[in-house]
Amino acid sequence: MTPDRYPDNPVLASAWRGDRIESVHRGSWCLVDSSGHVLEQAGTIEHPFFTRSAVKALQVLPLFESGAAARYALTDEEVALAVSSHNAEPCHVETALGLLARIGLGPESLGCGPQPPGDSDARFALKSSGGRPARIHNNCSGKHAGFLALTRHLGADPARYLDFESESQVLVRAAVAEMCGVAPESLGRATDGCSAPTFRMSLRAVATAFARYTTPDGLAPERRAAAERVVAAVQKHPVLLAGRSKRICTALVEASGGKLFPKIGAEAVYVIGVPGRDLGLAVKMDDGGMRGLHAVVIGLLRRLDLLEASVADALESYAQTTLRNWDGLVIGRITLP
Amino acid sequence: MTPDRYPDNPVLASAWRGDRIESVHRGSWCLVDSSGHVLEQAGTIEHPFFTRSAVKALQVLPLFESGAAARYALTDEEVALAVSSHNAEPCHVETALGLLARIGLGPESLGCGPQPPGDSDARFALKSSGGRPARIHNNCSGKHAGFLALTRHLGADPARYLDFESESQVLVRAAVAEMCGVAPESLGRATDGCSAPTFRMSLRAVATAFARYTTPDGLAPERRAAAERVVAAVQKHPVLLAGRSKRICTALVEASGGKLFPKIGAEAVYVIGVPGRDLGLAVKMDDGGMRGLHAVVIGLLRRLDLLEASVADALESYAQTTLRNWDGLVIGRITLP
Repeated sequence: MTPDRYPDNPVLASAWRGDRIESVHRGSWCLVDSSGHVLEQAGTIEHPFFTRSAVKALQVLPLFESGAAARYALTDEEVALAVSSHNAEPCHVETALGLLARIGLGPESLGCGPQPPGDSDARFALKSSGGRPARIHNNCSGKHAGFLALTRHLGADPARYLDFESESQVLVRAAVAEMCGVAPESLGRATDGCSAPTFRMSLRAVATAFARYTTPDGLAPERRAAAERVVAAVQKHPVLLAGRSKRICTALVEASGGKLFPKIGAEAVYVIGVPGRDLGLAVKMDDGGMRGLHAVVIGLLRRLDLLEASVADALESYAQTTLRNWDGLVIGRITLP
Repeated sequence: MTPDRYPDNPVLASAWRGDRIESVHRGSWCLVDSSGHVLEQAGTIEHPFFTRSAVKALQVLPLFESGAAARYALTDEEVALAVSSHNAEPCHVETALGLLARIGLGPESLGCGPQPPGDSDARFALKSSGGRPARIHNNCSGKHAGFLALTRHLGADPARYLDFESESQVLVRAAVAEMCGVAPESLGRATDGCSAPTFRMSLRAVATAFARYTTPDGLAPERRAAAERVVAAVQKHPVLLAGRSKRICTALVEASGGKLFPKIGAEAVYVIGVPGRDLGLAVKMDDGGMRGLHAVVIGLLRRLDLLEASVADALESYAQTTLRNWDGLVIGRITLP
């Protein structure tokens, strides 16, 4: 194993109980433009991280650029699902099954492992009906359906579509690297929670990629068209990006009226492109936890003037500026430095 | 609000993906004897934290010392539940209801808020039957039943049993403070997740309290008897301390054959007394998360020779020395420094 050293990052969020700080969440973030110029930052932003599901919108690009999306006539719903980390609500499962069927494959072709639905109602319904968590319920099944459509279009072997050197993954890696402004062979890689390749890059690089994605004037025509199609599909179907309840990505698209293009990744990675404003934001919390990440994302958007105050107030359940206990008593709050 | 500063603590656990550290968990811990002598430590151990549910075994002492436990003939099951953070499995709910009935109260007397059962089977059964999470399902309902028994015995008002200055809470605070070797008025306090008072003390102080609790030679006879009764009850009924599945406290009592007296607290606090060995261990993870806490607790017990290697191996699911994804692939590991 390569020795590794994690950077020393500052406290980005503090959880108070009464008049004392009970726990803290450290991390790093940056706001950049599409040239990679850093406008604001905290902590170490050149350290490479696995960006996990935060870069699904980059991983999907070859699906369009190859012609696969046109050939299989992907709907906007299927496009939004292909860049989602979803809750396995009925709309997510049906959309994934629909795309798989149209490319002549069944859910058993998915290479992502079985995962219980993220949505509690969907979990309850599955268990009540005697069903068991399956690959289709994996939060990444939409991305995998997209990978399989690309693989089919390329005439490659669907059994090998997750191999690092498979035809589809070579295209995916090249697109991710190019958007991040690095050479494909320099992208660190590992296996993601859904068994797909995951890539390692700096916060600065991934923030730049999302600034370029959502202000795509400088991209090649096919890539620009692909990025615009994905952003529009997510604006139209925010629930397919994540889910109805307790999902910050869906909430941000809905609350901002599509003025933000956000995506979460496991281990507390967050990226946001701001359509038309030449801005990309990337956040990584050191501890990998969601509490600090949610509070920091909402707090930064408010502070950076990317979310109107009234809209930010509606996202209070993520910011947790008021913490309540099981009986509804106010017991503390989360603050940013 | 009082200004507060959280200490800078070292990384205690690193989560790797492939050959890279993906996230880190910082914190502090110490191993002490019953005189408060620090044998080993990492990070800042004099900073006061809210110890939350980790000190339920201290909070229960007046129930015995007042004569309430004898008067109401508490069973070993009820004693174990009174110091538990339970899963609301049937055994937990029935035991709490039984004690409440014997003191002439119903579950509506509980001051803890309604909380869904921690156990997924219990949650599913409740929802399937059309029930809703209630106060009896709160993980602290056993502690509250104990508080109410004390309140009844004192002839005090059950409607006021959670007030900081109620008869029962004054006794509770005095016992906690005395065990920790501090003056009651110097204990910082706030409202816990279950609406009961929670106390703030250093890791050194709370570790010392648990060393004294489990090697109680120096305690007054009534307190010694109370501590011995509680430790024996937990040894006999480890499932009542937490629950059947995925609960590290129950797993540690069972795996060690009662040689450890452990308790978790919210925001990643952990205390362990080692019966007969004059040792107390206390851990607090900065980020309040369970992943780091579990890994650090198992790793420390192994390193400090408080858990045989074969026993520690059986607790691998908590230590997470191997991390697997949804498809069972090994994708990383958690390491200690």
